[in-house]
Amino acid sequence: MTTTLGIALMGTGRMAHVYGPKINAHPGLSLEVIYNPRMTSAQKAAAQYGGRAMDDLDAVLSDPAVDAVVIATPTDTHVDYIERAARAGKPIYCEKPLDQTLERVGRAMDALEAHPVPFMLGFNRRFDPDNRALREAVARGEIGRLNMLMSSSREPAPPPIEYVKASGGYFVDATIHDIDLLCWIAGERPVEVQAFGSCQFDPDIGALDDFDMTMTTLKMPSGLLCHINNSRSCAYGFDQRLEAFGDTGMVQTVNHRDDTLVRWDATRTEAREPLKHFFLERYDQSFYNALDEFHSALTEGRAPSATAADGRAALAIALACARSAREGRSIAPDY
Amino acid sequence: MTTTLGIALMGTGRMAHVYGPKINAHPGLSLEVIYNPRMTSAQKAAAQYGGRAMDDLDAVLSDPAVDAVVIATPTDTHVDYIERAARAGKPIYCEKPLDQTLERVGRAMDALEAHPVPFMLGFNRRFDPDNRALREAVARGEIGRLNMLMSSSREPAPPPIEYVKASGGYFVDATIHDIDLLCWIAGERPVEVQAFGSCQFDPDIGALDDFDMTMTTLKMPSGLLCHINNSRSCAYGFDQRLEAFGDTGMVQTVNHRDDTLVRWDATRTEAREPLKHFFLERYDQSFYNALDEFHSALTEGRAPSATAADGRAALAIALACARSAREGRSIAPDY
Amino acid sequence: MTTTLGIALMGTGRMAHVYGPKINAHPGLSLEVIYNPRMTSAQKAAAQYGGRAMDDLDAVLSDPAVDAVVIATPTDTHVDYIERAARAGKPIYCEKPLDQTLERVGRAMDALEAHPVPFMLGFNRRFDPDNRALREAVARGEIGRLNMLMSSSREPAPPPIEYVKASGGYFVDATIHDIDLLCWIAGERPVEVQAFGSCQFDPDIGALDDFDMTMTTLKMPSGLLCHINNSRSCAYGFDQRLEAFGDTGMVQTVNHRDDTLVRWDATRTEAREPLKHFFLERYDQSFYNALDEFHSALTEGRAPSATAADGRAALAIALACARSAREGRSIAPDY
Amino acid sequence: MTTTLGIALMGTGRMAHVYGPKINAHPGLSLEVIYNPRMTSAQKAAAQYGGRAMDDLDAVLSDPAVDAVVIATPTDTHVDYIERAARAGKPIYCEKPLDQTLERVGRAMDALEAHPVPFMLGFNRRFDPDNRALREAVARGEIGRLNMLMSSSREPAPPPIEYVKASGGYFVDATIHDIDLLCWIAGERPVEVQAFGSCQFDPDIGALDDFDMTMTTLKMPSGLLCHINNSRSCAYGFDQRLEAFGDTGMVQTVNHRDDTLVRWDATRTEAREPLKHFFLERYDQSFYNALDEFHSALTEGRAPSATAADGRAALAIALACARSAREGRSIAPDY
Repeated sequence: MTTTLGIALMGTGRMAHVYGPKINAHPGLSLEVIYNPRMTSAQKAAAQYGGRAMDDLDAVLSDPAVDAVVIATPTDTHVDYIERAARAGKPIYCEKPLDQTLERVGRAMDALEAHPVPFMLGFNRRFDPDNRALREAVARGEIGRLNMLMSSSREPAPPPIEYVKASGGYFVDATIHDIDLLCWIAGERPVEVQAFGSCQFDPDIGALDDFDMTMTTLKMPSGLLCHINNSRSCAYGFDQRLEAFGDTGMVQTVNHRDDTLVRWDATRTEAREPLKHFFLERYDQSFYNALDEFHSALTEGRAPSATAADGRAALAIALACARSAREGRSIAPDY
Repeated sequence: MTTTLGIALMGTGRMAHVYGPKINAHPGLSLEVIYNPRMTSAQKAAAQYGGRAMDDLDAVLSDPAVDAVVIATPTDTHVDYIERAARAGKPIYCEKPLDQTLERVGRAMDALEAHPVPFMLGFNRRFDPDNRALREAVARGEIGRLNMLMSSSREPAPPPIEYVKASGGYFVDATIHDIDLLCWIAGERPVEVQAFGSCQFDPDIGALDDFDMTMTTLKMPSGLLCHINNSRSCAYGFDQRLEAFGDTGMVQTVNHRDDTLVRWDATRTEAREPLKHFFLERYDQSFYNALDEFHSALTEGRAPSATAADGRAALAIALACARSAREGRSIAPDY
Repeated sequence: MTTTLGIALMGTGRMAHVYGPKINAHPGLSLEVIYNPRMTSAQKAAAQYGGRAMDDLDAVLSDPAVDAVVIATPTDTHVDYIERAARAGKPIYCEKPLDQTLERVGRAMDALEAHPVPFMLGFNRRFDPDNRALREAVARGEIGRLNMLMSSSREPAPPPIEYVKASGGYFVDATIHDIDLLCWIAGERPVEVQAFGSCQFDPDIGALDDFDMTMTTLKMPSGLLCHINNSRSCAYGFDQRLEAFGDTGMVQTVNHRDDTLVRWDATRTEAREPLKHFFLERYDQSFYNALDEFHSALTEGRAPSATAADGRAALAIALACARSAREGRSIAPDY
Repeated sequence: MTTTLGIALMGTGRMAHVYGPKINAHPGLSLEVIYNPRMTSAQKAAAQYGGRAMDDLDAVLSDPAVDAVVIATPTDTHVDYIERAARAGKPIYCEKPLDQTLERVGRAMDALEAHPVPFMLGFNRRFDPDNRALREAVARGEIGRLNMLMSSSREPAPPPIEYVKASGGYFVDATIHDIDLLCWIAGERPVEVQAFGSCQFDPDIGALDDFDMTMTTLKMPSGLLCHINNSRSCAYGFDQRLEAFGDTGMVQTVNHRDDTLVRWDATRTEAREPLKHFFLERYDQSFYNALDEFHSALTEGRAPSATAADGRAALAIALACARSAREGRSIAPDY
């Protein structure tokens, strides 16, 4: 039997449009409320996805139909909503990142300690079937002791410069995904990190003292070494690959495509189509699976698998990478 | 805007269990009735998938909530239900094959001529995204003039001998899928066929004078040559591959897997997992897409793309193959 | 220790240019004589590859420096040279085919029976490392009992029409390679064959009542079924692939390329270069290996592995295929 | 016309056994002398590969049959032999590395400045056909501006500990290959490097304060970022892969195998054999090609393409990597 949880979806922006349809598709979730402080925005989203439009936060958090909140608001408001929802005793699913500063993340963690509601951070890539399959192969001992991990993560094109300005920098905005994924696979967190950054694609990003291409190395307590490369531009699409190297073997994930067609002609052979997906398509299933984990954890009375502490650690590591790239030395993350 | 069609699902066997959930998943279809002459079977299925259980065929076919029927009953009853539904003026989706004999298929076609209701035959593999992508690549002229087509279609294990006995023989039961697919891609039908059969896996199949492994060649009017190989057993799973060879290139489809993991160890490298899917998983999407084509054709007022004539032609070709294997000569199908 | 065999290379045409350098590269073979009835041709070849130019056949066959002959003359002279060399007691390596008629092949076999010198037929594809590896995997039982064999063999472009006229027809000229290869892998010969042919590329070939595209099926005594497809034209190069399907697995060979580069860009991903090789490059190693087998067999005192009987059987099967395509029925080869 | 160069092969150890057969196989090189200060060693090698055994260095360097020397002696003797040969005016091919210290490398460079004989360093991986093909694709602009380079280079098993002791450390012994290769492809040298090392496989290596697994990042003046990962152990063989990522595409090299067989069974599909080659097999062609470059450069009167300066730069970078791993900061190489 499935227990149905009434959900208040906080926010009506891009990520709310990701979560809205997935809440509706999940048999155990019911979209009861869509909240935005501006009623017209809330109403527009509610017309699209159902649920009652609300602009009064207190009313949302005291609504008896609301069993849990899904926070999909701008990043700099996450902590405030977490504090409010925790105080109201509502279980929380919060889109990543918690925040861009350790200080404010600390505030959220304090609130969750004071009001220990179930909390899950939306590190969706953990819930991608391929990433899970790789982690399970490692956990099963298929490759023996894990010795190296690599993640190549390259976006098709730089985002609008306004997005970059608010992003907290490339390490905090993007590398944080790879960092969380690798730590989750490894089951440990780096003692030291090294990073280099370049600006190769968009000079406006360079003018902000930010990077659009980075290489990051993590050194784990066990001796495991991890490599991450990120790029804000990739001519052939959204390139997402993992490699785990152990002492008895290696396992890799490869890219997804819409079809399996293999093409041969006078100029190329065994060719596949370009990578048409960006993150919404590539990780579509992972967002659904993340909500499903939230639902399962709540109905089974256990803690969801991506915690606020995971979010804090990933942020601390990403900030250490940024500092390493700036200062030219290895940095021990401030856990 | 989506027009919703009320559906009567005829039958409660294996294929009804395929169609039931897909009717429910389709936003334009509503499962109104589940019919079985034995009320207890109808009730059991209705409890699972919804809709009203009915055991009175006249009542089903005169029910105002029933806009169309989906026939998923045993093959030897297809023609009778087609005659009844056509006379009642109900649009028909019928699981393949129409029947195992040309005589009875002729009766169904006569009924559809006398009562020209919309009719679609469930050649689901036409609606598989990979197969469609290959056909579209051919149609777009990506490989120039089409010169060869190959289909490898191998099942994991022989079906129960009772199934084989009622199957009409391996060509009529299985090769018919490849035949329809290749004719649909080619846009033409063979003038001559050749076939060989063996019994390599299950001697009980041989005792029925049937085959469990066949190779078939089709010669098309344009000079296009087609090869089909079928096997009732395949150690590494359900192997489904197409190859289209034209005068400027070639295009192939490859097998599906649950994940993209590529494994390397001391005994193997670049290895993928075995093919875990059988036809329900491998062609899951295609059954949904076939119902969607039925819905679209009806609401757009056009004929669905897999016709009774296609079914008759595929059967005539499959019977010609069986005769070729038996008589040791090329056979011209009896269209 | 290597025993060096003095070789008389018979002929100065295309195949002589294949064998000349390989005789020179082999440490156990010494190119002593190049023979052509026209002395100027013999002299030109001898200037290129070494050895004495000779135009007197009796002198060649009685030359004490000549331990064996390599016949690389036009096909319709093979039998005459075999008769002469056998009578002279010289071991013979003869380029395939023995001849285009069973009658003349019979004459060669009679001569070899009367004068039982070591004889090897140049079915070079047996000596290709990939083809050998596949055969060994089958022989080792890696795929269990062998149930299907497939060979795709497609040439980049039709040969000059003069070549086609003298070729004996497409089955005898080209399919014979695949036939020998599959029989050699299978360890058995077909009881029945079926074939279709088309003319899709060069109408001049059609005007000769010949085909430039064929599909052939062989039925083996064990129940094994074999498929061969051949094409005189292939836009992406010289396509050479085998597939062996057994009851516990499958093994395939794939095409060769000059480099391993995998290319990704905005229009294609994981693309490989076109197949640049034609048969001289693709099977370069196999010609050397075939001469090495001839050398090893002679120095070890055993029969070489590709016999005149193999050549007769392959021709009988190819002729049966041609007749099947012409008469529209299964044909039992005339062994 | 080919000019033949008389070669004195210096040394009779492992690398001399690599070069001996390749000198003999090259039509433009003639192995005149094999030198070792111990005459019995020289004689043994000369018996195997031909040439005169000599133990008197002055006699070798004044021998009129010796046009050039190939130095394949222990690393710590390279500089001495370079000084002697340069003074004698003999062109030099020297196996890499020049030496393990910048001070002694400086001595060799001084000698070559004072006595400017043609000099080539044996960075054989530059002459591997795949690596060259990748570099040419980059140089042709196939992937636009080069933005990232990756090299994965993993050895099957740790070498004997005595070898490790004399190796100069893992960066100087092994990473130096990848460093030279990436700089050669990029056409530039790093301004800064970062590296981490671990000891995961052989505690005896750790006891020497050396690493058996490293990750290295290079930052080039253009903004290009390079990643290198090295391992002294690899369960599936000698893993050698390059990846070049540009702003319009990507190109990769993949591993080599003895055959192309693709295997499917109940536990794995599309599997390839393990990587059986170690460096002698994998880079066999590259050693021959390197000697061919030496021969071509000398006969064409141009400088060979891998210079002493390249050797010094690669060493400086490798030493900077070792220091980065030790000191936990980015290091600017001491060019």
